[in-house]
Amino acid sequence: MMKLSRFLKSSNLLGKPSVGDALGLHVFSSQAGISTARSDFTVKDRIFAPYTVFKGKAALSVNPCLPTFTKSTSGGFKVDRRGSVMFTFWPAVGERKYDYEKRQLFAMSTTEVGSLISLGPKDSTEFFHDPAMLSSNAGQVRKSLSIKPYTEGNGYFISLNVVNNILKTNDKFLVPVTTGEFAVLRTACSFALPHIMGWDRLTNQHHEGTVKGPSKIDPRMPDLEWDK
Amino acid sequence: MMKLSRFLKSSNLLGKPSVGDALGLHVFSSQAGISTARSDFTVKDRIFAPYTVFKGKAALSVNPCLPTFTKSTSGGFKVDRRGSVMFTFWPAVGERKYDYEKRQLFAMSTTEVGSLISLGPKDSTEFFHDPAMLSSNAGQVRKSLSIKPYTEGNGYFISLNVVNNILKTNDKFLVPVTTGEFAVLRTACSFALPHIMGWDRLTNQHHEGTVKGPSKIDPRMPDLEWDK
Amino acid sequence: MMKLSRFLKSSNLLGKPSVGDALGLHVFSSQAGISTARSDFTVKDRIFAPYTVFKGKAALSVNPCLPTFTKSTSGGFKVDRRGSVMFTFWPAVGERKYDYEKRQLFAMSTTEVGSLISLGPKDSTEFFHDPAMLSSNAGQVRKSLSIKPYTEGNGYFISLNVVNNILKTNDKFLVPVTTGEFAVLRTACSFALPHIMGWDRLTNQHHEGTVKGPSKIDPRMPDLEWDK
Amino acid sequence: MMKLSRFLKSSNLLGKPSVGDALGLHVFSSQAGISTARSDFTVKDRIFAPYTVFKGKAALSVNPCLPTFTKSTSGGFKVDRRGSVMFTFWPAVGERKYDYEKRQLFAMSTTEVGSLISLGPKDSTEFFHDPAMLSSNAGQVRKSLSIKPYTEGNGYFISLNVVNNILKTNDKFLVPVTTGEFAVLRTACSFALPHIMGWDRLTNQHHEGTVKGPSKIDPRMPDLEWDK
Repeated sequence: MMKLSRFLKSSNLLGKPSVGDALGLHVFSSQAGISTARSDFTVKDRIFAPYTVFKGKAALSVNPCLPTFTKSTSGGFKVDRRGSVMFTFWPAVGERKYDYEKRQLFAMSTTEVGSLISLGPKDSTEFFHDPAMLSSNAGQVRKSLSIKPYTEGNGYFISLNVVNNILKTNDKFLVPVTTGEFAVLRTACSFALPHIMGWDRLTNQHHEGTVKGPSKIDPRMPDLEWDK
Repeated sequence: MMKLSRFLKSSNLLGKPSVGDALGLHVFSSQAGISTARSDFTVKDRIFAPYTVFKGKAALSVNPCLPTFTKSTSGGFKVDRRGSVMFTFWPAVGERKYDYEKRQLFAMSTTEVGSLISLGPKDSTEFFHDPAMLSSNAGQVRKSLSIKPYTEGNGYFISLNVVNNILKTNDKFLVPVTTGEFAVLRTACSFALPHIMGWDRLTNQHHEGTVKGPSKIDPRMPDLEWDK
Repeated sequence: MMKLSRFLKSSNLLGKPSVGDALGLHVFSSQAGISTARSDFTVKDRIFAPYTVFKGKAALSVNPCLPTFTKSTSGGFKVDRRGSVMFTFWPAVGERKYDYEKRQLFAMSTTEVGSLISLGPKDSTEFFHDPAMLSSNAGQVRKSLSIKPYTEGNGYFISLNVVNNILKTNDKFLVPVTTGEFAVLRTACSFALPHIMGWDRLTNQHHEGTVKGPSKIDPRMPDLEWDK
Repeated sequence: MMKLSRFLKSSNLLGKPSVGDALGLHVFSSQAGISTARSDFTVKDRIFAPYTVFKGKAALSVNPCLPTFTKSTSGGFKVDRRGSVMFTFWPAVGERKYDYEKRQLFAMSTTEVGSLISLGPKDSTEFFHDPAMLSSNAGQVRKSLSIKPYTEGNGYFISLNVVNNILKTNDKFLVPVTTGEFAVLRTACSFALPHIMGWDRLTNQHHEGTVKGPSKIDPRMPDLEWDK
């Protein structure tokens, strides 16, 4: 599970499914025999720490994407492009083999992440994306990601459906996630949420001069509530 | 939704309402066609990463405001002015048009943020502010922010009422927020809470010399509990 | 509430009680008229950002205290003295007057903080401290802090009782806290917990060289589980 | 409880059990008389801030282990070896005496930590590790860690069983943890989870150049969702 980098190099590869899922147990095998060769990973992503689960019919990898900021001439920053949490699905093509070339992506927005982390054990939710929404191709590609609880209530099915009318394709992925795996998603996405919103800048500001001498007024703390 | 900066430049502007809300769905459209022009944002705010929802009658934007600190001569810091989470409302003035000039602000205190994040699905709460409380104008401007659950229980109505007896105005704003949007507010405000209290200074301290040699006593860790 | 520093200078002072509590409402008054004079705070505490509530009979202030670390000769760090969350109580001595000289302290340990943050709406808990536990004065001073829910379930009573057989004193403090105030305590203490444990060092480590070249083995990640 | 370092030096040592557990109370004694001598701790661990509970039959210590990263030639980072939360058990060998030499370890993976933090008050879970899973010794050493709620529902039994067919040993450890202690584990492990996953890198990135001028495209934010 750790060496996802290997999957990026091969379209037909040996995956490492979570054997324990079928048993309702979690098996954590020694990584000693696996991680001997370190890959020389060269993509330009600064972070590469996805949370990945390999299941019978597909794999799902979840990775946060930070927002970008534009620096203003006055020294302030504003969010230019919001962050997201990227869900990547790719299909199994044999026993423990997955084809990363056939991956499909779904970028969860801030509010969609909010829906995910607030799901109760019996709740379900569904999100719809149209990658070409405001272009002439609107409606040609439709993506839907749904999260539905197991009947027994100890996990969720996460599925992605991508209908592409241009390529005449219809890709479906179904990944069951256990309670423990969903708790990882929930906790990690809750952690990531302020970051993809840009609110973690709060912390950084302190380093850059929030502390004021007694006579300076902080321009960031307007009394605007009292102005009206 | 990302280019709120554009709203600040025009009092009569095209908003981007969350179309999916009426359907109970979340629609996340491609930002590609929207964010072509980057604005040259020039206000002095060091952070500008609000979470904004555009609804039928009004828009609501939420942004944390950090406390300011006063540096003591001994090298310590104390909170001089507490932080808050600013709620900004502005009205719709046409289909997908919002007038930011008519905005009203409500600065949620630490305890009010505590009330918000602890709301159960059927709980409601209301806060009252008098911007001129301790001045001769006390009682002339009254603001109340209320949060009430949907009857169906899958979201909240957040409303602001501002009665200004001086200007003879009465502004009302009503913004329905979905469960997912409220989860974003709850998670982001929970994240922000220690920051607006100044407790995130905990982390920073380590960098600045908490580590002690074996013979030094840390003056910050008084044995005062045992002194009495 | 913000200018607690003023309380430290005077034993007989004008407090700022939360007027709204009696009404079950939260009133947040403008700070503009209050915070004109900045005090020249000179104690050696590096942080001074307590969360304070002023009630009818007493005030309660809550402040985190970080652990101290001992640097080993090998460059590692270990916790030398655990952190705590300090609860400080002091009595009301008149209408809106509180006497900080008569304060009593209770340093909540890691596990006690765990008990506080896991309290359900109908749960209560009680902690006992003997400041002189392992000395010849054991049993002479007994402190107990109890947290009990309101009958109506919308808040808690936090009380401290200090019996000092040496001074022949028995100090009692009772502070009702609303749901919103307790949510602040819960959230802030949950935030503080990893810090008072020293686990926030996790974050800092990355800055100091966790990143490894392909041939180095990290001595911090022992394969000890597999050694036996 | 603080001076665990002493336990590392002696195989037959005086522990400091949580006396209050038997009473259902939490007793926090003064550390003043205990921590007079600072040890010259010299292991290469950069962090040593375990959370430890001493009970009648065994002690349990919990400590996070960060992932390691491999730096790519392009300046990016990827997780090379995932982090974990290490659970260390060692037996009592007399009244308040524990033998650290007889310790057994269990490295909780990301998903196992997810299972732990999502446990309801009546839930139980069990994890199985085979340290030699992919080697010729597979099946020779079997470890199982189980977490089961008290019948009364105010805590959990955490037990570790290690069967070693090579050494012909079978080690069992049983540690009851109170609600407050489990809340510490849950909160600390929730805090640690993004760190052992490597997601805390999100925060660091901002310092290292996420801010973009208006004309640069961030290679980390691919439009891949829209490419298909």
